[in-house]
Amino acid sequence: MVGEMRAAVMHGIRDVRLETRGVPVPKHGEVLVRISRVGVCGSDVHYFVDGKIGPYVVNAPIILGHESSGVVAALGEGVSSLRVGDRVSLEPGYTCRTCYHCKRGRYNLCPNVTFMATPPVDGAFAEFVAWPADFVFKIPDTMSLDAAALLEPLAVGVWAVQRAGIGMGSSVAVFGAGPIGCTTLQAAKAAGATTIIAVDLEEFRLGLARKLGATHTINGRDGDVLEQIRAITTPLTGLTGSSAGVDAAFETAGSLPTCRMAIEATRSGGVAVLVGLPADPLVTLDIVAAASREVDIRGQFRYANCYPAALALVAAGRVDLDAMVTHRFALDDAQAALEFADREKRTSMKVMVEVTP
Amino acid sequence: MVGEMRAAVMHGIRDVRLETRGVPVPKHGEVLVRISRVGVCGSDVHYFVDGKIGPYVVNAPIILGHESSGVVAALGEGVSSLRVGDRVSLEPGYTCRTCYHCKRGRYNLCPNVTFMATPPVDGAFAEFVAWPADFVFKIPDTMSLDAAALLEPLAVGVWAVQRAGIGMGSSVAVFGAGPIGCTTLQAAKAAGATTIIAVDLEEFRLGLARKLGATHTINGRDGDVLEQIRAITTPLTGLTGSSAGVDAAFETAGSLPTCRMAIEATRSGGVAVLVGLPADPLVTLDIVAAASREVDIRGQFRYANCYPAALALVAAGRVDLDAMVTHRFALDDAQAALEFADREKRTSMKVMVEVTP
Amino acid sequence: MVGEMRAAVMHGIRDVRLETRGVPVPKHGEVLVRISRVGVCGSDVHYFVDGKIGPYVVNAPIILGHESSGVVAALGEGVSSLRVGDRVSLEPGYTCRTCYHCKRGRYNLCPNVTFMATPPVDGAFAEFVAWPADFVFKIPDTMSLDAAALLEPLAVGVWAVQRAGIGMGSSVAVFGAGPIGCTTLQAAKAAGATTIIAVDLEEFRLGLARKLGATHTINGRDGDVLEQIRAITTPLTGLTGSSAGVDAAFETAGSLPTCRMAIEATRSGGVAVLVGLPADPLVTLDIVAAASREVDIRGQFRYANCYPAALALVAAGRVDLDAMVTHRFALDDAQAALEFADREKRTSMKVMVEVTP
Amino acid sequence: MVGEMRAAVMHGIRDVRLETRGVPVPKHGEVLVRISRVGVCGSDVHYFVDGKIGPYVVNAPIILGHESSGVVAALGEGVSSLRVGDRVSLEPGYTCRTCYHCKRGRYNLCPNVTFMATPPVDGAFAEFVAWPADFVFKIPDTMSLDAAALLEPLAVGVWAVQRAGIGMGSSVAVFGAGPIGCTTLQAAKAAGATTIIAVDLEEFRLGLARKLGATHTINGRDGDVLEQIRAITTPLTGLTGSSAGVDAAFETAGSLPTCRMAIEATRSGGVAVLVGLPADPLVTLDIVAAASREVDIRGQFRYANCYPAALALVAAGRVDLDAMVTHRFALDDAQAALEFADREKRTSMKVMVEVTP
Repeated sequence: MVGEMRAAVMHGIRDVRLETRGVPVPKHGEVLVRISRVGVCGSDVHYFVDGKIGPYVVNAPIILGHESSGVVAALGEGVSSLRVGDRVSLEPGYTCRTCYHCKRGRYNLCPNVTFMATPPVDGAFAEFVAWPADFVFKIPDTMSLDAAALLEPLAVGVWAVQRAGIGMGSSVAVFGAGPIGCTTLQAAKAAGATTIIAVDLEEFRLGLARKLGATHTINGRDGDVLEQIRAITTPLTGLTGSSAGVDAAFETAGSLPTCRMAIEATRSGGVAVLVGLPADPLVTLDIVAAASREVDIRGQFRYANCYPAALALVAAGRVDLDAMVTHRFALDDAQAALEFADREKRTSMKVMVEVTP
Repeated sequence: MVGEMRAAVMHGIRDVRLETRGVPVPKHGEVLVRISRVGVCGSDVHYFVDGKIGPYVVNAPIILGHESSGVVAALGEGVSSLRVGDRVSLEPGYTCRTCYHCKRGRYNLCPNVTFMATPPVDGAFAEFVAWPADFVFKIPDTMSLDAAALLEPLAVGVWAVQRAGIGMGSSVAVFGAGPIGCTTLQAAKAAGATTIIAVDLEEFRLGLARKLGATHTINGRDGDVLEQIRAITTPLTGLTGSSAGVDAAFETAGSLPTCRMAIEATRSGGVAVLVGLPADPLVTLDIVAAASREVDIRGQFRYANCYPAALALVAAGRVDLDAMVTHRFALDDAQAALEFADREKRTSMKVMVEVTP
Repeated sequence: MVGEMRAAVMHGIRDVRLETRGVPVPKHGEVLVRISRVGVCGSDVHYFVDGKIGPYVVNAPIILGHESSGVVAALGEGVSSLRVGDRVSLEPGYTCRTCYHCKRGRYNLCPNVTFMATPPVDGAFAEFVAWPADFVFKIPDTMSLDAAALLEPLAVGVWAVQRAGIGMGSSVAVFGAGPIGCTTLQAAKAAGATTIIAVDLEEFRLGLARKLGATHTINGRDGDVLEQIRAITTPLTGLTGSSAGVDAAFETAGSLPTCRMAIEATRSGGVAVLVGLPADPLVTLDIVAAASREVDIRGQFRYANCYPAALALVAAGRVDLDAMVTHRFALDDAQAALEFADREKRTSMKVMVEVTP
Repeated sequence: MVGEMRAAVMHGIRDVRLETRGVPVPKHGEVLVRISRVGVCGSDVHYFVDGKIGPYVVNAPIILGHESSGVVAALGEGVSSLRVGDRVSLEPGYTCRTCYHCKRGRYNLCPNVTFMATPPVDGAFAEFVAWPADFVFKIPDTMSLDAAALLEPLAVGVWAVQRAGIGMGSSVAVFGAGPIGCTTLQAAKAAGATTIIAVDLEEFRLGLARKLGATHTINGRDGDVLEQIRAITTPLTGLTGSSAGVDAAFETAGSLPTCRMAIEATRSGGVAVLVGLPADPLVTLDIVAAASREVDIRGQFRYANCYPAALALVAAGRVDLDAMVTHRFALDDAQAALEFADREKRTSMKVMVEVTP
């Protein structure tokens, strides 16, 4: 597979160029994947618009994109779990395998992670990627390559739900009904949640949330959100006042007010998971109220071992990722895709880049 | 509510008579429920046919039936959680509230439990039952009184699934596709299991299991059950040989061979839950193989705190209990119902007694 | 046991008077306890000095004191677990036994709790208290009545440690080395923690912390606390930078800076337990940093089912509560005891009121 | 470090010869360790006496020994966590790092494990071993090389205790007071167990168990073991009859009767861990009684991530491994050491081979 390939390379803020690169050579334990689809993630847009996310700065040309699927094109040495031609989904971060966290199975906390599209690691807006075989998952024939790419945001939702510890008959509130909110609420439903409240400011998103499984939607512009959540959940547990609320709240909007609301919307003894994170790190919270109700506040950094479950849920029809794709662009139009995703947050859900038609 | 009521009273083996009893008076914290539906459980049939189950012997007249629903007819003192007219489901065992287990929330292990239709405690084949309000659950208008009665076997399935610790994307095998097998597989599906293998000897039951969510069914008469389970599950984890298998196996048939198979069908590090129990207590198992694969063997005794989840799952349409009702009898025909349930195991799933039409 | 007893009654701020009250009559399920010892808790001092704690206001005369031990003087009906003459420790809060939380074993969240010395419920600065038998624990002959009274603050430490989920070989940091800090660090040691860092501003307290099991002490006035904690813990896990830190941090000082430090001092994937709570509810935290390292923030409200473990630890000599008693007063001097505890925080650890000599 | 070394090589049953071998060369990520001490394990004796353990057969010459300590003699490429001269303990099994179990942190179930002294993998009865650096743990100066070697059986005990889920104030029974029984009871004590019952047939072992922390010892020849355990534990929980018993029982003797007793000695809702395994795989158990009391039966296969905790416990003085060494042999006398360990089970605890004096 020696040869050349096309890749969309970010050179600077709002500057992505189509270039020719050498096809990577899979090392021992790796496979070469011909990329089919890459979803545009909020973090791609952040790099594109700001040139950085927190401590990660785009100082050199980088290939963005980390929600990807494709077809195995070649096997490196020692790979027996996959075959050329297998349709696959790529988990975009692989880790050191020897540190404290890796050995305990929580590899998302590995300080030596190699994560696609996080400077200086290249991502998947390219025709080929070489990747460790144990982070590449074969999908069934019935699964679309779109859905396979979107196992990544679903993995985020699966981890959020696992962190929350919810299950059959649980009640949840999801703050923010963007792509992560929508995969989280679907994961919550798949895990057994029966009361699923989506909160957002945009009717477009709330409409899709309803279609994907939200049992209640609340537009943050209409009335007191907390009051509505407590009214919905009080019959479930008999808890009233500040004790009432959902078993778990998921903050996916990354704003301070929703951060606060997520914690307050959780019943005594429940869990608030901070999936998104506010831009301003210094958050003023009523931590005393949360602590004295034993509401746990749990953060999230990516996910670990969630691809198999995400894949299984989609394959079984429990989660619908295809419905989340609202717009499509070719690889040649990667710049346009990023600009569109930045501009049309209110009217789009997931923008998909078709690398191989 | 002073007055008289009809009740079906078991006087001896295969001897159930319709009698007149005084309507019970609800004590402090209790409600009086006019019974609507009572499902016939295997344990009812056992008492009817054998006069005993293990250490529990029918020495005096007893009213059978513990899967019940009804309508609140009167409130005892101090009850504010329910109102007269509420349609309800009755959790059939209440406990001491002060012992080691009750205070830790695992009240199913309470040695001072009062459980319907377990000698000498009367059950629900009667027009009225007085019961503690916190073990009586209001159902939504959309739920049938049949389904409300069958929350009891569903609670068994919910507890089994909770004991197994499975979730999104899990694989399970359910040995026995009778009422408990069918509620267990539905609970497993509701909790996120995507590979659900039902094993039974009767095609009638396997057909219903498929309808209720089994993704695979295996007739124990056809070929090697273990081999089939390992073939189904190997692609999920990559585990092969004796390491392969389901994340959790549920034994609901109460036979020795299925007990053994459940343990062997579980992957290394998985869980086998013994929901049913073989008649012969002394079971010969290859405990060495199980232990060296770290397959946990967990037993089950009823359930604790499972009614709210069971109710929520049915209300949300995740579990279908109505489809499990195959035959109906009036309270006056309780004896016939028990005889039918004993005789027609192969062609019936759940026999329902309609106490109030 | 009809008769009169002495009690120290708070009538207003800094106004505690010795009065005569009727001896309470134990109801069904209760025992009458002749009180021996009552520890002065920070909350008693708060009520004494401020007349309130948050929403709880002393509007009517109240008996303070909730860390108590004594001798069973009489049994109410239906009590078989205790006998007259048993030396006992009293768990100061009993709950409704029927609500969502009680039935799940997390009764500390019960909204209908009856908790001693929390307005309007009387406490134990009195010669007799009648209390439910299942919240009264018999102590062995070898345990002092002082230690028996102090099972209460130890129960707080036990719950904190259980909430943290630590065990053999864990590292912990305890912020604040007052009575709760000292019981928490002892509980952590008893649970297997081998690196135990106590942080305080007072050498008197740090000295006692060392005696009770702290392996390292840090005076907050000396240098960078976080840097020191990271230097201590880096060799344990190999984690460096902001990933380094303890497996669990316990905030017991109730100050904002220690709240922040507790969270930052926790390693990625660890747990910060907020045992104390800052006076100002609105806390500004770097929640983004915590969340992106998956540091869980868990609050605490009292404890559930911790008395048996606390009792066992003291009986086995794993925790030393007697060493924490630094000063003693008679019941007649309850006002002096409260004033002393308020004034001498820097030189006292636990002030004990001897009700019965 | 090119050169030759001495090794004790097993050629057949009861035939161990001292031979000269090439010093191994550490690969990328490995260190070369000059071995200091190697404990003789029951499995070494099994191979020596029977030539096999279950499916593992000694078909070719093999070096036995897997409980080892030493000093780092050279570093392979890419190793930065250790230095030449570091005193270390070797975890004897390393795994594939890419399979289902490895990625989830339960690497002891990895089907591709490389485990010392398990045919055909050589062990540590040799002057040098090359081993992956992340399975080699630096010990503090205060720890003996004997203790460092015995972290291996302690890791077994740590895992057993973690599997049991016990903690502060728990009660445990350990069946078999050999080396694994003695490390298990010490781990249980370190984790907070306060009632620790050791059961054995040999007074020599029970005496050592008492010294190491057992609070009660029962000689299986004296009276009814179960009755004694229930009498000891009844006051702890108030549970009586077959509900009474310990929170967790550990079977380390590998006999059928103790297997049964371990399960019966566990209280309702507790856990029986099968650490040892009976020679005969087909065990007849009263599984019905266990299951209906919700006594979990958990097996054990080695351990995962237990060396850091084991090391910390010994370094902190919570566990005493030195006291378990009863006899010593030089490497040249490896055959004698194995013969002695086989012959003197009743009078020895741990036989240590001193490879480097």
